Parts: sequence; structure tokens; C-alpha cells
Amino acid sequence: MQDAYGNLISSLAQPNDKRICLLVMDGIGDCDNDGNGTALQQAKTPNLDALAETSALGLSVPIATGVTPGSGPGHLGLFGYDPLVYQVGRGVLSALGIEFPLTPKDVACRLNFCTLDDDGNVTDRRAGRIGDDENHRVLDKIRAALTPPDGVEVLFETVSEHRALMVLRGDGLDDEVPDTDPQRTGAPPIDPTAHSDSRTAGLVKDLAAQVHDILADEPHANMILARGFAKFPDWPRFAERYQLTPGAVAGYPMYRGVARLVGIDVVAQPTSAADICAEAGKALSDHTFIFAHFKYTDKTGEDGDLPGKIARIEEMDAALPTLLKVRPDVLLITGDHSTPPSIAAHSWHPVPVLMAGPYLRGGDGAGKGFDDVTCRAGQIGTVTAKELLPLAMAHAGKLEKFGA
Amino acid sequence: MQDAYGNLISSLAQPNDKRICLLVMDGIGDCDNDGNGTALQQAKTPNLDALAETSALGLSVPIATGVTPGSGPGHLGLFGYDPLVYQVGRGVLSALGIEFPLTPKDVACRLNFCTLDDDGNVTDRRAGRIGDDENHRVLDKIRAALTPPDGVEVLFETVSEHRALMVLRGDGLDDEVPDTDPQRTGAPPIDPTAHSDSRTAGLVKDLAAQVHDILADEPHANMILARGFAKFPDWPRFAERYQLTPGAVAGYPMYRGVARLVGIDVVAQPTSAADICAEAGKALSDHTFIFAHFKYTDKTGEDGDLPGKIARIEEMDAALPTLLKVRPDVLLITGDHSTPPSIAAHSWHPVPVLMAGPYLRGGDGAGKGFDDVTCRAGQIGTVTAKELLPLAMAHAGKLEKFGA
Repeated sequence: MQDAYGNLISSLAQPNDKRICLLVMDGIGDCDNDGNGTALQQAKTPNLDALAETSALGLSVPIATGVTPGSGPGHLGLFGYDPLVYQVGRGVLSALGIEFPLTPKDVACRLNFCTLDDDGNVTDRRAGRIGDDENHRVLDKIRAALTPPDGVEVLFETVSEHRALMVLRGDGLDDEVPDTDPQRTGAPPIDPTAHSDSRTAGLVKDLAAQVHDILADEPHANMILARGFAKFPDWPRFAERYQLTPGAVAGYPMYRGVARLVGIDVVAQPTSAADICAEAGKALSDHTFIFAHFKYTDKTGEDGDLPGKIARIEEMDAALPTLLKVRPDVLLITGDHSTPPSIAAHSWHPVPVLMAGPYLRGGDGAGKGFDDVTCRAGQIGTVTAKELLPLAMAHAGKLEKFGA
Repeated sequence: MQDAYGNLISSLAQPNDKRICLLVMDGIGDCDNDGNGTALQQAKTPNLDALAETSALGLSVPIATGVTPGSGPGHLGLFGYDPLVYQVGRGVLSALGIEFPLTPKDVACRLNFCTLDDDGNVTDRRAGRIGDDENHRVLDKIRAALTPPDGVEVLFETVSEHRALMVLRGDGLDDEVPDTDPQRTGAPPIDPTAHSDSRTAGLVKDLAAQVHDILADEPHANMILARGFAKFPDWPRFAERYQLTPGAVAGYPMYRGVARLVGIDVVAQPTSAADICAEAGKALSDHTFIFAHFKYTDKTGEDGDLPGKIARIEEMDAALPTLLKVRPDVLLITGDHSTPPSIAAHSWHPVPVLMAGPYLRGGDGAGKGFDDVTCRAGQIGTVTAKELLPLAMAHAGKLEKFGA
């Protein structure tokens, strides 16, 4: 698969001083709640509504019709990277989630502590769901006793409970390593070299054997199971791809991590709407692209908390004037996906989009405001997420003409 | 070409107990009839209108803009199989049309009886358009005298007039057989081995020579011309592709055939709207997907019979409550293409779509009903036919999240 559209846009990108702000209200899209409308419909949003009066509206399909995105693919789409082409391995996502600073020499995987019986068969794939403290203690024990392979560093980080991250760092490592997790009890851990000639698989086999010895006396966590080996991807850097000077304003590890995945540096880590708008506004003074991330519209949606989601939307609405004051040349407000409280999870619904820019065909929200339904009739139409940044770049004069 | 979207959906499919019903009103789309509106606009449809009040509406493009589909591709799209990727050979379509039960060992082709002169040149490619009776008689003569190749069965079926079906059944047969029809008079039948090394082409050459001898005394049908050799396609089975338990409720051979092409078994063969709704409702008790097919909205359209098409729509509307009573979790009502009476043939117009499901953004048809025009403004938007089943699956909770 090729990212033909992204490559086209990259070939047309030209730098200028115009500043684009992408404000992600995570999980902002919704479906109807018992006939009372979506969270955006129910929230009181005078500032968003006023902005919508002079803005273009539309809907964004994160991946494809019917497909519910995870946070990684959802954001890659908003960054203009086709999420079906730029797929992130699970090990790397795990590292992003705890903000472990991966390098191009790294291979990362997810670890589960597990329990083996005397015959070497798995009796509990989660080692009795040990707590974080025991996780820390057992990892320290491994770190102290493990002999790393020649020229390779082996790094461990606690994630939570029975979950951890393992990173192999060295030259020439690969991620052609099968999972060692048998995905069931009553079977031994899988030998990763059984179906792979990869050098790294051999290293993982030796490491697992060492860990087995080191943890022999542990009552619960006496072995590790590894899954989702992945290298830090060697993707086009955002700055070169688009001729932009990018920065991220994001308070949660996962979103800082996804930004770093495409080479966007983090300039501030606020979590409240007021701080996000203030920091994004400041950062626009020396960046031509700012990605600002607001988590709580998603979090409340995932909690099934409709009043909470409405309140968080209203929190962002109240904060918005701080950002508007610095007059971004193009302001894009949208989400990476929908998170309806009635589903209490991410969903496939197209996401509301608002774009304030200089060259519109009137204001779509006049008299109607900004919500999941008014966006349907807007001038942007229903597009895929990866089309939004190019559209903003066009409005900022950052795309050359195609052909003569 | 690859069916990337279909493969993505297949990779996300997960089974559950929710039941999806796809009710195809064949050829339901229309264009304006002398300023009086489309058939759906003119029909009195209180049940569809009431359903539309709480449903999502949209339009479906069967293949691509401007492209008029045949029944095969039209339905494959509705089954989520990209019709441009999953192309059915003419021989196989011919077999489906008369409900000949093809097996994976079969190669099928269309036969025309023709007339040859003494020099072996075709003088009439349709053998004077002989009637069905003569077709039957001549086929019996061939069956009685033909010596089949070793290990191969040769089967013949009348289609109509001068048309027949020939099926070769055996191990290792291929469909790399050029047409023997020269497509003009004054030329001899084409030797299929002239441009093909295929073993099957050799068998066809021998069979044609035998038939030539057997029919030497016939005044009209003294030879056969063969076209469109095709094997029964080895496509992903619907049940595995989507993790659904599918069944078809269809009264006409072609539609049962297209269902079988993707491995959907036929559970009932009703033709009236009342029987279709009753049988579909029953079948939903032990299937998670039912394809129900109503032929007459297309047939009346092809006959150029606007009052007839309106009456058939009203027949289905009256029957609908029987189906609604069993409360399918997701109900999709649409067509495989449009058949405007003013064209008296299939057309390229996008097809109205109604989807009743649990996670909508309000009801699109409130105060407006369900027709070709109201559907344009609906929340589904204008999508391709192959996106509809994935969308229904999303609403039924049958698609996992993409990425983390």
C-alpha cells in the first residue's frame, strides 16, 4: 500500500509564515442520546457557535466507513498520514503510552508477567494480576541479574499490574520476532526461534531463559510472555513532509508519543482547556503548526458520562477566546474519532470538523451552531481525516499549484 | 487490484448474536418521471416513512459514478465484495441465471447454436433463432452421442432459444480457453488452441469437432459457438469473511445464485413481498445475517411500467410490519441499482438507503419520508455499496477497533 495522496501533498508543500492550529477535542463526535441529541448539540457553546457562524463545517471519517480507530491511527490521520499505510506496531504503542523515549535502534514489545507450573506450562497468563509494586520489584530483580547480549542494551519499564515494556537497543536488531505468549494456559511459552530465523528472535529466546532462572523462586510472576515486537518506524518527518515548524501541546503521554512518532516535538503539557488554549496560543508565536490535544471529551465518553462530556465541551468553549486572541491563520477544531457516551467506547461515526480560514464560501454555522448534525451540511463535506491538514495548508497558502 | 477495504473489514470482524437484515428492493432507485417525481416519491409508503423517521438515510453508488451495474456486481457490492475486484465470468453468470449448481471442479461457458455452410463458415450466429423445443431436442442428440474426455463430465443445459450452457467438470480444468465464436458470419469457428496452450482448450476443440459430426444433418443448429469460459470463483466465503451466519431469502434463480457465489445458503424462495418479509423474519431466528430479495421493483422498472413499480413499492411497504415485528438489530433497506421506468433498464443513479440501527444521529426522514431525494441529505451520506454492510456491522458491534 502507498500513501499516494500524502505523497502528492508533500510534493506540493511550500513554507510560509502562516500559522495553522489543529485543536483536537478527543472523541468529540457522538450519536444521539435517547432523543436528546449529541453532546455537542446539548452543550452550551456560545464561543464555538459564534466561530461556526464564519467557519466552514464538515465531517471527518477517521479511517474508513464503519471502522472504529484507536488513538494512534486516529491521530495519524489528522497529521495527514494514511493510517492504513502507516501502521504502528503494538510494542511501539505500548512505549508511547508510557512515554518511553524510543530510538531508531530500538525494538519494543509488550510483556506480561505470567505463572508457570513445574512442567513449564502457563497456569496464569497474568501472574495473578500482580500490583504495580510487585511489578516494580520483579523488574528490579531482572535488571540486577540479567546479562545482556553483546552490544545490546535491554530496558524494562513497568506499565501497570502484570504489564511491562521490554526494549532491546542495539545495531542491526529486527522485529521479525514471533510472540512468545501462547494465548492460553496449559501450554509452555512459545520458542520465538521455532518459526523465525531472525537474530533478534534468538536474543529474545536467551533473555527469556535467563528471566526464567532469575524468577524461579517467585510465587506468581515466575516468567514473562512477550508480544507485538516492533521497531520505531522510520516514517517521513512531519517538518520535512509539510515544510512546517510543528509543535505539540498535549498533556497525556499517548498523544505526545504519537506526535513524536512523526517527529513533532512537545512544547507544553497542559491538561485543562484553559491551559491548552493559553499554551497553544503562545506556541503559535514561533511555530507554523501547533497540535493541541484535549483529552477529557474522550475520557468522559469512555466513562459513559454524558453530562461530563457536555461539561468538558463547555470547558473548552469557555477557554477558546484565549486561543482566538492570537488569530491563527487557519484554525481546525475536530476530533480523532467519536466517543459516544451511549457506547462508552470509541466509535466509527464521522467526526465534526470546524475550520476557520480566510477563503470560505460563507459561514456554515450561521444560526445553527457547531455540532454533529450541522456539520453534515457544511462546505467541507464528508472527507477522510487525512484530507483535513492538506485543506488547512491550502487555506494557509502552503500548497503549490499542481501542474502548469 | 486488491479489495483493501474488504480485507480490512474482514480482519476486524468479530462474531456476536446481533442480527442484520439486508432487504434488497431490486432496482428501487429512479429518476424524475415528467416532473411527477420518482417511484418512491409517488408511492404511498406509510410504513417506510414511519421507519425513516427514526432511521439513517443515504445514497449508495453501486460501482462508481456513472456506471450501471448488472445484477451480479450490484449484489456483490451489497455483500461487501468490491465488484471491480470480484468479477464474475460470463459462463458462471449464465449458470447462475438458470440456477445450474456449479462446483469448484467446473468450467462453464455460454453456447450459441449456429449454422455453418459447407465450407465450415458461419452463416448465422444464432442458428435462425431456434426455439426452446428445438434447443432441447438438439442438446439431447448431443448428450446421447458425445464421448466425453477421460475423467471429465460434459453437461449441457438449455437457456433459451439458441442459447445454452456447457459445463466441463473434472480435476485440473482451467478457464484459459479463448472464445470459439468469431463474432461475425463468413468466418469459421475459432480454434481455441490457436492462441492457448491450456489443456481445457484442447478438450473444447475435440468436443466442438464431435458436436460438428453429431449435428451434421441439422438444418439450422449444425454447430456450437462457445464464449466466456469461467471457473466457479474461489472467493472468500461470506461466513468466514464477516463472522456471520448468513442466509438468503430469494425467489429468483439469479439472486440465489449470486448469494451462493459467496457461500450464502438459500433458506427460502418466496417472491411476494408478504412472503419475503415473513420468511426473512423467521430466518432471523437462527441467522445473524439475512439477505432478502424482492424482484418486482426492478422488473416493473425494466418494463417501463411506472404505475407497476409504484404498486410494487406499496406492496413491500404493506408487508414491512411483519419483518419489523422480529426487530432486527440492524435493518438495511436499499437496492442493488436503480431501474427508472423512463429508461426501462438498469441505470447508474445512486440508490436510496435506509438503515435502522441503535447508534444514529437522530432520524433523517422525520417529516420527509424515504425517497431518492430525502436520502441525499441523510447522515449516511453518499457512499459506495460495498460500505453498507460494514456500516451495518459497526452498528451491530461486529467490528473490532483498528489499532490501539
